[in-house]
Amino acid sequence: MANSRFEYVRNFEQPDPLLPNTWIVVRVDGRAFTKMCAKYKFEKPNDRRALDLMNTAAKAVIADLPEITLAYGVSDEYSFVFHKSTNLFERRSSKLVSTVVSTFTSNYVYSWFSHFPDTPLSFPLPTFDGRAVLYPTIQNLRDYLSWRQADCHINNLYNTAFWSLIQLGGMENKEAEQALAGTLAADKNEILFSKFGINYNREPEIFKKGSVIFRDYELVEPASHNTAETVDAQAEPVQQSKKQTENDKKRRSKAAIVVDHLDIIKDEFWDRRPWILSNKPGKIPKEV
Amino acid sequence: MANSRFEYVRNFEQPDPLLPNTWIVVRVDGRAFTKMCAKYKFEKPNDRRALDLMNTAAKAVIADLPEITLAYGVSDEYSFVFHKSTNLFERRSSKLVSTVVSTFTSNYVYSWFSHFPDTPLSFPLPTFDGRAVLYPTIQNLRDYLSWRQADCHINNLYNTAFWSLIQLGGMENKEAEQALAGTLAADKNEILFSKFGINYNREPEIFKKGSVIFRDYELVEPASHNTAETVDAQAEPVQQSKKQTENDKKRRSKAAIVVDHLDIIKDEFWDRRPWILSNKPGKIPKEV
Amino acid sequence: MANSRFEYVRNFEQPDPLLPNTWIVVRVDGRAFTKMCAKYKFEKPNDRRALDLMNTAAKAVIADLPEITLAYGVSDEYSFVFHKSTNLFERRSSKLVSTVVSTFTSNYVYSWFSHFPDTPLSFPLPTFDGRAVLYPTIQNLRDYLSWRQADCHINNLYNTAFWSLIQLGGMENKEAEQALAGTLAADKNEILFSKFGINYNREPEIFKKGSVIFRDYELVEPASHNTAETVDAQAEPVQQSKKQTENDKKRRSKAAIVVDHLDIIKDEFWDRRPWILSNKPGKIPKEV
Amino acid sequence: MANSRFEYVRNFEQPDPLLPNTWIVVRVDGRAFTKMCAKYKFEKPNDRRALDLMNTAAKAVIADLPEITLAYGVSDEYSFVFHKSTNLFERRSSKLVSTVVSTFTSNYVYSWFSHFPDTPLSFPLPTFDGRAVLYPTIQNLRDYLSWRQADCHINNLYNTAFWSLIQLGGMENKEAEQALAGTLAADKNEILFSKFGINYNREPEIFKKGSVIFRDYELVEPASHNTAETVDAQAEPVQQSKKQTENDKKRRSKAAIVVDHLDIIKDEFWDRRPWILSNKPGKIPKEV
Repeated sequence: MANSRFEYVRNFEQPDPLLPNTWIVVRVDGRAFTKMCAKYKFEKPNDRRALDLMNTAAKAVIADLPEITLAYGVSDEYSFVFHKSTNLFERRSSKLVSTVVSTFTSNYVYSWFSHFPDTPLSFPLPTFDGRAVLYPTIQNLRDYLSWRQADCHINNLYNTAFWSLIQLGGMENKEAEQALAGTLAADKNEILFSKFGINYNREPEIFKKGSVIFRDYELVEPASHNTAETVDAQAEPVQQSKKQTENDKKRRSKAAIVVDHLDIIKDEFWDRRPWILSNKPGKIPKEV
Repeated sequence: MANSRFEYVRNFEQPDPLLPNTWIVVRVDGRAFTKMCAKYKFEKPNDRRALDLMNTAAKAVIADLPEITLAYGVSDEYSFVFHKSTNLFERRSSKLVSTVVSTFTSNYVYSWFSHFPDTPLSFPLPTFDGRAVLYPTIQNLRDYLSWRQADCHINNLYNTAFWSLIQLGGMENKEAEQALAGTLAADKNEILFSKFGINYNREPEIFKKGSVIFRDYELVEPASHNTAETVDAQAEPVQQSKKQTENDKKRRSKAAIVVDHLDIIKDEFWDRRPWILSNKPGKIPKEV
Repeated sequence: MANSRFEYVRNFEQPDPLLPNTWIVVRVDGRAFTKMCAKYKFEKPNDRRALDLMNTAAKAVIADLPEITLAYGVSDEYSFVFHKSTNLFERRSSKLVSTVVSTFTSNYVYSWFSHFPDTPLSFPLPTFDGRAVLYPTIQNLRDYLSWRQADCHINNLYNTAFWSLIQLGGMENKEAEQALAGTLAADKNEILFSKFGINYNREPEIFKKGSVIFRDYELVEPASHNTAETVDAQAEPVQQSKKQTENDKKRRSKAAIVVDHLDIIKDEFWDRRPWILSNKPGKIPKEV
Repeated sequence: MANSRFEYVRNFEQPDPLLPNTWIVVRVDGRAFTKMCAKYKFEKPNDRRALDLMNTAAKAVIADLPEITLAYGVSDEYSFVFHKSTNLFERRSSKLVSTVVSTFTSNYVYSWFSHFPDTPLSFPLPTFDGRAVLYPTIQNLRDYLSWRQADCHINNLYNTAFWSLIQLGGMENKEAEQALAGTLAADKNEILFSKFGINYNREPEIFKKGSVIFRDYELVEPASHNTAETVDAQAEPVQQSKKQTENDKKRRSKAAIVVDHLDIIKDEFWDRRPWILSNKPGKIPKEV
């Protein structure tokens, strides 16, 4: 049963390397999550347990793949940003996407019980799909992330108003839809406040801003370094010594991976955390 | 916080449709399974529980995605064959690969406990990667599957001899390696039989042949239909009525999904199960 | 001026191999040929000199690249079919497309003078673009070619009627358009015959069928060999001896490259010329 | 002869858009130019007529495709740089590559006679192949161009020494090869000067530096604007009014397209011609 006469089939494997020196975003999306929400009775408009579970799974992905410099999640989607200098898996698209999706899924299912102790999983199980998108510049990358966060805000304001009209105002779905048709953000804020005494600004940050995950170091004074806008222009490819690479790796492994709910559209987030775009680990904060 | 100025980033998404009218094989592989085997003390040379878990996960993938016509698994890898006529997810590569990998992973982690009740999972969790490969003809597809099954046989014979020398013969790894260096299949059979009284042919089929999963219908007499060799030549694309498609779907959903350990290199397997390559459901066997 | 610090830029070159064992069609199209027709006063509805020049250029492409098994041309487009077994340029898409387009263009410009001795070229010069499309089966390939030839027929019948109404019937463009709006093929035949005494069936074959170019061998009796439908099913990849390959090459180089205007939609063309799909050279016809 | 049953074949056309916001370099190379050199007796080590013909063809490509911001040529190769903002042909790779290659070839063949009036073309005609490569940053793009120009220098110094040893020194090819084996640049300079009285620095710039083609405007004082290093960092995508785009187009069409032989490795070339990287036309120089 010699194998050699079949081996020609390896020639059918096509290469799929992603262009070097571009930011790789692997975006993971829940499959058929509308059904999932109904089946497991997720709370409306936001189920805190479900969001925490997403964050738990995403944190595990970052712990497993240190080449990921940032992740941003909202609802049933998560975007993982690989630094543009990464050469993980020779930047093969399928390998990167499938590894991220599998690690995310594995942790989601495994951690389900801790977040939903009273709601056992049943078939069909939760699953996710994914894809990779390349962004050539920091501006493009930040605009992608801003797009997701702006989307989070727009959807959450709408959903908060929509479900208040139903849950607190006793409307039917159709009625609530009509009540909100054509309203601007200010109108929705007003409806929430005047009808239900809800100040949207005091809603939990995780609902309004989504979740951002990154390795944490000491915050930096923006004036003390090149700000995000100029990092693209630095000469590439930066060649650093093996020892330096080892040191970076060690420092990175000591950094805490934090989940926070910050504005990532404005510059401040980036200016105070230069390590996210530079890929150079910062200072480990002193323990108090 | 208008979203429109960021939306241009959608232009960075690149299309990745797979060529129509070709067989799509999505191959899933365990990541770092050598470490996994050690960590969870998988039995050598084959751990029946681990193989059964792989099969459970693969079966769930096929139940979830009826467009898969066959799957073949060995060790920590599984190949899922989508019929060449499938238009699932518009044949987008990332979507197909990530969905299969996620569904496989989800079921693997979920079903771990039933197969390893005494061995709880711990971090890092088991994960898988995947990729899609296209095969234009039935011959190419069958040669791919033959390649995997021939590989299974070659590795299993080697591993069975290797671990017998260690576990039963008391050798060190190095010694066993040297004892097998340069041996042919016949030599390994002879070593097993003369030294340890093991008749390799009586080893479990699942170890020698791997596992093949498919929907089961009544077996067909090979003479009664076009055999595999001529199916490629049929006119394409076959246009059938919606009603016919609906009927096929119903029959497919009634078919049992079976896990078996058969020779898929020879013609017989294919000749007696024409539905696998034709994608036309067969007769549901009568219950006894 | 050491070069090494720049060489990393080679990593940006992305591989672009075309899937093995599929038919490669490189399609060449004239750029801005409507303007060209006006500028060089091509005759309407067909300019025989322009078509002959296209054929001259296409013939040179086939002479230069023996891996091309057939070419089909109509109007300002030409399709070149590489046999599915070809490994020319390791099947790199850009290399194949650019080589065909460049060879076609080179010969078109060079041979312009022989076909338009009274009409010198001027800037901007005639140019062509191109792309590669893969067809997995003979049926798909033949359907592609049938599509182009059916298109040729449909367009030519329309154009013949349209320009007769203008050139012989004295209509304006708009009037002719309206006269033909909604007419079927039979109506156009009738208009041509009743108004202008033109029997469309007697129009030159090159106008009605386009041009097909191939290497010519002795025609074969269809019954004597496997017909086109079954060729796909033959075991692949065929491994033949080097000597056999050399013999094939020699015979191929002796074959005449002919331009003809035949029906390539029906089976007969293919059945009598099995070498086109099998890539096995036929018998060189005896000279009379 | 309804066409509709064949039209499904259009589904086999695969999309091939190039990633937005990256620099596109289409590189054109002569096919089998070693044979060409021999056949047409090109002078060694450089044939001025052949280089001028390459430049003539490249200039025509730039005149035809204003989206090209710069071209660099050496020997039988030419690199055409499309500005990263271009959306020409929706950035389809095959279309861009084939159009550039065809336009180059067309002009090369057409202009052959003006550059080689005594040497008629014969079959096989000169042809070129091409491919597209993406560079995400200005630094990557400039490093690519620096790589080509450094290559030009290294090859030309070697060839000048090599052919001097043969043509002036009476050596055989083998001897000349051995005489240069292991020599550094300084050694080759020394051989040229001491043996043949040739000062390499006084060799024609076109041989030492290759040829660079661009639209010419008034040179700029480097201090007066952002230098090349910072252009990448500018916010993207720049949206400008239609009127502004029209104005730019007009100014661009008035600019002279010049062929020069300048150092493009150092910053000065780029600092004084900011329009090449910014794609904003400069000032048209006043005629004297």
